[in-house]
Amino acid sequence: MFAEAKTEAWSGRFAAPMDELLTDYQQCLDIDIRLASVDIAGSLAHAEMLASIGVLSGQDLADIQRGMAQIRQEIEERVFPWAKDREDVHMNIEHRLTQLIGDAGKRLHTARSRNDQVATDLRLYTRQELDALGDELKALVSVALDLARTHAATLMPGCTHLQIAQPVTFGHHLMAYVEMFLRDIQRVRQARERLNELPLGAAALAGTSFPIDRHFVAGRLGFAGVCQNSLDAVSDRDFVIDACSAGAQIMMHLSRLSEELVFWSNPLVGFIEIGDRFCTGSSIMPQKKNPDIPELARGKAGRVFGNLASALAVMKSQPLAYNKDNQESKQPLVDTLATVRSSVRVFSRLLPSLSVNQARMRAAASAGFSTATDLADYLVRRGLPFREAHEVVALTVRRCIESGKDLSQLTLEELRQFSPVIEADVFQSVTLEGSVLARNHVGGTAPAAVTSAIESARKRIEAA
Amino acid sequence: MFAEAKTEAWSGRFAAPMDELLTDYQQCLDIDIRLASVDIAGSLAHAEMLASIGVLSGQDLADIQRGMAQIRQEIEERVFPWAKDREDVHMNIEHRLTQLIGDAGKRLHTARSRNDQVATDLRLYTRQELDALGDELKALVSVALDLARTHAATLMPGCTHLQIAQPVTFGHHLMAYVEMFLRDIQRVRQARERLNELPLGAAALAGTSFPIDRHFVAGRLGFAGVCQNSLDAVSDRDFVIDACSAGAQIMMHLSRLSEELVFWSNPLVGFIEIGDRFCTGSSIMPQKKNPDIPELARGKAGRVFGNLASALAVMKSQPLAYNKDNQESKQPLVDTLATVRSSVRVFSRLLPSLSVNQARMRAAASAGFSTATDLADYLVRRGLPFREAHEVVALTVRRCIESGKDLSQLTLEELRQFSPVIEADVFQSVTLEGSVLARNHVGGTAPAAVTSAIESARKRIEAA
Amino acid sequence: MFAEAKTEAWSGRFAAPMDELLTDYQQCLDIDIRLASVDIAGSLAHAEMLASIGVLSGQDLADIQRGMAQIRQEIEERVFPWAKDREDVHMNIEHRLTQLIGDAGKRLHTARSRNDQVATDLRLYTRQELDALGDELKALVSVALDLARTHAATLMPGCTHLQIAQPVTFGHHLMAYVEMFLRDIQRVRQARERLNELPLGAAALAGTSFPIDRHFVAGRLGFAGVCQNSLDAVSDRDFVIDACSAGAQIMMHLSRLSEELVFWSNPLVGFIEIGDRFCTGSSIMPQKKNPDIPELARGKAGRVFGNLASALAVMKSQPLAYNKDNQESKQPLVDTLATVRSSVRVFSRLLPSLSVNQARMRAAASAGFSTATDLADYLVRRGLPFREAHEVVALTVRRCIESGKDLSQLTLEELRQFSPVIEADVFQSVTLEGSVLARNHVGGTAPAAVTSAIESARKRIEAA
Amino acid sequence: MFAEAKTEAWSGRFAAPMDELLTDYQQCLDIDIRLASVDIAGSLAHAEMLASIGVLSGQDLADIQRGMAQIRQEIEERVFPWAKDREDVHMNIEHRLTQLIGDAGKRLHTARSRNDQVATDLRLYTRQELDALGDELKALVSVALDLARTHAATLMPGCTHLQIAQPVTFGHHLMAYVEMFLRDIQRVRQARERLNELPLGAAALAGTSFPIDRHFVAGRLGFAGVCQNSLDAVSDRDFVIDACSAGAQIMMHLSRLSEELVFWSNPLVGFIEIGDRFCTGSSIMPQKKNPDIPELARGKAGRVFGNLASALAVMKSQPLAYNKDNQESKQPLVDTLATVRSSVRVFSRLLPSLSVNQARMRAAASAGFSTATDLADYLVRRGLPFREAHEVVALTVRRCIESGKDLSQLTLEELRQFSPVIEADVFQSVTLEGSVLARNHVGGTAPAAVTSAIESARKRIEAA
Repeated sequence: MFAEAKTEAWSGRFAAPMDELLTDYQQCLDIDIRLASVDIAGSLAHAEMLASIGVLSGQDLADIQRGMAQIRQEIEERVFPWAKDREDVHMNIEHRLTQLIGDAGKRLHTARSRNDQVATDLRLYTRQELDALGDELKALVSVALDLARTHAATLMPGCTHLQIAQPVTFGHHLMAYVEMFLRDIQRVRQARERLNELPLGAAALAGTSFPIDRHFVAGRLGFAGVCQNSLDAVSDRDFVIDACSAGAQIMMHLSRLSEELVFWSNPLVGFIEIGDRFCTGSSIMPQKKNPDIPELARGKAGRVFGNLASALAVMKSQPLAYNKDNQESKQPLVDTLATVRSSVRVFSRLLPSLSVNQARMRAAASAGFSTATDLADYLVRRGLPFREAHEVVALTVRRCIESGKDLSQLTLEELRQFSPVIEADVFQSVTLEGSVLARNHVGGTAPAAVTSAIESARKRIEAA
Repeated sequence: MFAEAKTEAWSGRFAAPMDELLTDYQQCLDIDIRLASVDIAGSLAHAEMLASIGVLSGQDLADIQRGMAQIRQEIEERVFPWAKDREDVHMNIEHRLTQLIGDAGKRLHTARSRNDQVATDLRLYTRQELDALGDELKALVSVALDLARTHAATLMPGCTHLQIAQPVTFGHHLMAYVEMFLRDIQRVRQARERLNELPLGAAALAGTSFPIDRHFVAGRLGFAGVCQNSLDAVSDRDFVIDACSAGAQIMMHLSRLSEELVFWSNPLVGFIEIGDRFCTGSSIMPQKKNPDIPELARGKAGRVFGNLASALAVMKSQPLAYNKDNQESKQPLVDTLATVRSSVRVFSRLLPSLSVNQARMRAAASAGFSTATDLADYLVRRGLPFREAHEVVALTVRRCIESGKDLSQLTLEELRQFSPVIEADVFQSVTLEGSVLARNHVGGTAPAAVTSAIESARKRIEAA
Repeated sequence: MFAEAKTEAWSGRFAAPMDELLTDYQQCLDIDIRLASVDIAGSLAHAEMLASIGVLSGQDLADIQRGMAQIRQEIEERVFPWAKDREDVHMNIEHRLTQLIGDAGKRLHTARSRNDQVATDLRLYTRQELDALGDELKALVSVALDLARTHAATLMPGCTHLQIAQPVTFGHHLMAYVEMFLRDIQRVRQARERLNELPLGAAALAGTSFPIDRHFVAGRLGFAGVCQNSLDAVSDRDFVIDACSAGAQIMMHLSRLSEELVFWSNPLVGFIEIGDRFCTGSSIMPQKKNPDIPELARGKAGRVFGNLASALAVMKSQPLAYNKDNQESKQPLVDTLATVRSSVRVFSRLLPSLSVNQARMRAAASAGFSTATDLADYLVRRGLPFREAHEVVALTVRRCIESGKDLSQLTLEELRQFSPVIEADVFQSVTLEGSVLARNHVGGTAPAAVTSAIESARKRIEAA
Repeated sequence: MFAEAKTEAWSGRFAAPMDELLTDYQQCLDIDIRLASVDIAGSLAHAEMLASIGVLSGQDLADIQRGMAQIRQEIEERVFPWAKDREDVHMNIEHRLTQLIGDAGKRLHTARSRNDQVATDLRLYTRQELDALGDELKALVSVALDLARTHAATLMPGCTHLQIAQPVTFGHHLMAYVEMFLRDIQRVRQARERLNELPLGAAALAGTSFPIDRHFVAGRLGFAGVCQNSLDAVSDRDFVIDACSAGAQIMMHLSRLSEELVFWSNPLVGFIEIGDRFCTGSSIMPQKKNPDIPELARGKAGRVFGNLASALAVMKSQPLAYNKDNQESKQPLVDTLATVRSSVRVFSRLLPSLSVNQARMRAAASAGFSTATDLADYLVRRGLPFREAHEVVALTVRRCIESGKDLSQLTLEELRQFSPVIEADVFQSVTLEGSVLARNHVGGTAPAAVTSAIESARKRIEAA
């Protein structure tokens, strides 16, 4: 059994024990504990393989399986004796195993090293979290599709530069986010597929002298293959950066939606109201209804961006193979996966709580000469070159602004002062409905196009 | 023709011209000029489509094709009259076209907007650069494989924590980088595939009232499909971030290799010498041979990381659809693509220039008890539990350090003082060659395994 | 004279010349040219010092001064023969000097190295740019103070969470930005003071064997002192990061103001209109008036954030002393200083162009129960504990929302149903004017407090 | 007393309670608990002020003081009943206060808001942590000065580009870091001074209608002044970014020192050995002694860089005044302050543990023609122009490399073949000692200059 004075796995060579300041500086047990479950799974697969090649006896394997079952239970029941001075989750579990089953526990680490063990655990953990994140994204898309279908024909102002540009439908607007989330699902899946190779067998950095069967272990743990180079296997943290990159894009998308939710909730805009339970009030202004969740999501986007910056900086200029710097890649990984997952989840609950004020949306769309483009298109169809049509409409709008009128308030006579090709049928083109209905092509805002896009997205998400 | 006082495309509504400070603040012509070629390609495809649906006449199309051919030539011959006060590359080209061919030039912009035009150009440009980058990466892998084959059996110390850990081969070490670059190639390809949808047809943000054929244009420009939502099409810059993320990982990998090249070039280490033409000297220390290229590559990794941070920050919290903020996503995109591409290229020239000092590598691998693990494995094969074997070796090494000897300098008698199971065959296990040869599994450092990995990688790169 | 085949300063030791790819990879002449003026100034001070200690003759010094005068003129007149293959600005100038004046030019580099020369140039350049930036910030504060004085009593809604919270004055709102800019001025000044020590004399890294007089050179160049350690002098780029940090905060502040300008310009809000010449229109929507400048400033904030991330990543983990990585700190430095300076300048021109719609501001402030806090304070003054007063007002507002009334529309009887302590004087407290006037303390929004803050700020800026 | 169903401070207006997912998403109690002590201090100062202006009675004040004393004790004894569903530390404490003392607790929040309360708490906390960090930095400088004094004359190779350039002393090398830390101390102090203004009194955003005395509160809490604008007071998080920026520079400096410690510990270099208790071993390679602490510090530098990126991204484009996004500025702040402080502390313990191998340092300095510059300087003193002297030495070194000799191994005759001006006294110039002794000016590496720099730094640190 391990003596008390040398709890670290490598203590044989050293005289002086490490003091508490150092223990704290290098330990990461609070993060590590999340890895306990995958660490046990990885050890069991390794032990099975060792037994299959005769390095462990059947009895050793049975002991290890029994011991690990108990440890798993202890952890679930929160009675496991975590010790901060046993460095990390891996040493805590191995030490406990040896306490419980004796020598077989000391044989478990044969033909592996903490370097390939940690790399395996981190990949298993990341894979599991990415899978869960993918599911949350699908749920969010599903909720967004429902809302888009409800509002496939709800008119609202489409903006560029936050200026009212052209009428669109709210369903069409929501479908823009669906496109973003579908790309996010693809990114998450590709990150998952790229990491799904087994590092175990790389040992410390060079492989092992035991006749291991890496594909056996890969199969047990659901890996699609094995890492092809042992130095790369233990030093690679690309998958941390891949996960952080995917997470950053997801949060960027949520930050955009959040910005719009906050804007739409402003009383001067008043397009939507977010459900009470997603808002807070003020301790001094009792009338306030604050869109906390979207604001937090914007803030958390910044947090996740920082995690990506951290992960890249940690890996920059590291010589091969493993260096302790890598430990600092865990924090951005774990924090990113947790933050992004909860953010996506919160949004799939928040979206159904929206009350949409269709009257205010429509009124806003009517303002700001939002069908000026339609007038230009009308003129082009009447034979004007586009750039000339554009100039004609520009002058017409300028006159409207000076006289305080909207385009639709001009008479045919007034309109014809700007271009004699204008006829009475112009008025069909410059209504909100006319404008929206005319954009009936793939990707356009016409309700029929939106409905078709919803159906198509539903199929894509089912296939994903 | 455009009057001099209103060079901007949108000037009809405005009275006051923009002063120079503002022109400078918002122009990005120096970056834009790189887009000229794809802008022309995009316009030609759009014009063909307009002609195919009858919006442009055959004569118009012919005029446009003729005008664009001349413009393309003017640009190539550097005689094109770029004007900074015409905002951007798109307006410069359209204005010149109208100068050259008259009214047909004014009809070209029918059924599109600068928003979808810019988005299309940027995707075309990014696709072309990613393709070139992918080719450079394949060339680099090919060069690295050649070097790895030469050194499949060259012994060197494998390090963790920059401490000598176990012997590996230099070929094996190089193959770790091959694995990284193969992942990079995949990332570049996935970024390319994800962006390969046509934005054109989204017009300003809502689609257009003309009966456009978006798949026609997509086909002409080599896009695999069309963007499914017009608001997303004009506001999306995910592909910028995807490209910057892939670039950041590539540069991170090069920074690691660079760190090692610099370390290996240090005279106390002396494993390699970089070819003269990749180094500089000193203006005051004439004997210096500085590994400038790897140092620059490390620095440029920081630059590309910053570009990724910029791109994410630019897109954070932007409401839909297009906002001018997006213009600031061009700089990180263009700079990243150029920096990464030239960095990869420089390394594919630099690697063949390395002189490898095999004697120094081998000598270094012999030091530092680098086969201690092999002794531990030997003891395990003799029946000791791994953790006990580990303790035995630790004590043996401690004794060696105290007495100033290496493991291989101990006699069998001395070794047996630490464990009676040790026999004379131990000495085969603890040589450098014995250590390396024993690691003959997938991913291991044995020369046979390395050779096999090289063959496999060559096939993967041919398939990529 | 230098032979053609060995244009690099260090070429004596090397056989093979560098090919173009490498030349491009490592050159930074386009950035460097900005340093020409300070490089000449630094060389002249160095030459004067060398003459003062007898290392250069009076004739040499006179030759150098004459040659540099001509070079300065050639650069100004854009006829200087820049050669990309002469590495950098420093070698270009020295080479030209030797062409013009012969041997004295070859003596100039005595007792210095490019390492301390570059460090000196960069500090001189940064100091000059920070001084200019400080002046631009003062100009911006001055413009903001003028606008604040005009609107010291203009009512507008104060928001938290973009929800209307309490009435404030527009002048008070602007003064929040003045506070930010005053902190920025302090940061810029502190960055300037910290860098103002002379690196020259550090030579390559260890100092020089000539009896130099560093304080003489420092005095000539306006440095407050000399760097106290030669290794630090040539390797330090803290001042790059200090400048980028200050720049990032400034851009963050401008991004906040920009966000508000964009929001206020939205037609549903309509608080302000930005002057025409700071806006652009749309190529397809002629009625649009886009707030391009604030949008660009938001985007450029992201750009500058990325520069800071780059500069930090470049410097991370560099061993002493100079490494070529440092060259990549120039780009973020130069880009940051140029971007921030032009951004501040643009805003000092943009602010006076604002048209303020006081009626819409006031109307918005009236909505949303913005004086609810004042009612709560009233109740506290009548003896209710704050938390109870808060609950009373919360219930009152809830009733108002249900019945579609504003607080001011309730009768005294209705109000007293919520709390019997309410008397007729309550109505003075809950008007917009009453609310604002009551906050008459340092930092409060009462017009008198704002006017006083303006006067105080004007004095602080004069003292700065 | 508060009813159970409405634990949030603002619950009066709302019907539906918040579910757990949301509670988790928005709570930050684990971070907040660090603010408990300063929150109580702030509340006590506020209460005293309210009593001094007659808004609270003497009895109320006494009750509050008594209640807060008990709460402080409960927190210290870890028996305080933290409730996650009471949002944050502020509401937890106020709620407990009201439980303990009744109505007076409900009066405490008069004339303030959580917005100015949080801003005050964060400034107090940051100030306290920056003060502690400043002390740690001074301790580190002191330790570094001791080590530098011991090694003021210990020869080692000075490197540029990690190539041996010129001999320096180890003391001189260490003093470069002292210069960095002295700048860091200044940055920390300036960040501290800039934040030292009281936000309290800003209330929610506009000030308060009570006749508060802000300077009274500032005095009680040790603030040098009061925030001059209420909107800025509640929305400003510049101090978070200032702290993160200072922290990033400190960690960058430690990462550079760490890189060198790792390099020097490599067995091929062997300049130093780090004390056992700062290293770990390997679970499979018992002979390893890994420099974990410097490696972790490098990694943590990346972490802190990410925190800075987060903080900037969080604040970008936020409209005034307070938004919930700000909550996400707490994590990077708290994590940065804790990480940097512990890192600095660990280094002040690690440095004294270094064993310096002077023989290996000296031997390394002898190699690589490290006194070539001295030969060039010698030639200049003999009348050659610097650039010609440089060429002469370059050719001499080239010949040495070809013939496998060092400069000092050439005879006078051989040397004179390169330049006839060389005399026998050249050999004094080209020894290591001669080279170092000659650099005896401010900032130079001569032992006398180093000793003088140590004395000067000791005075600067005492004055700081």
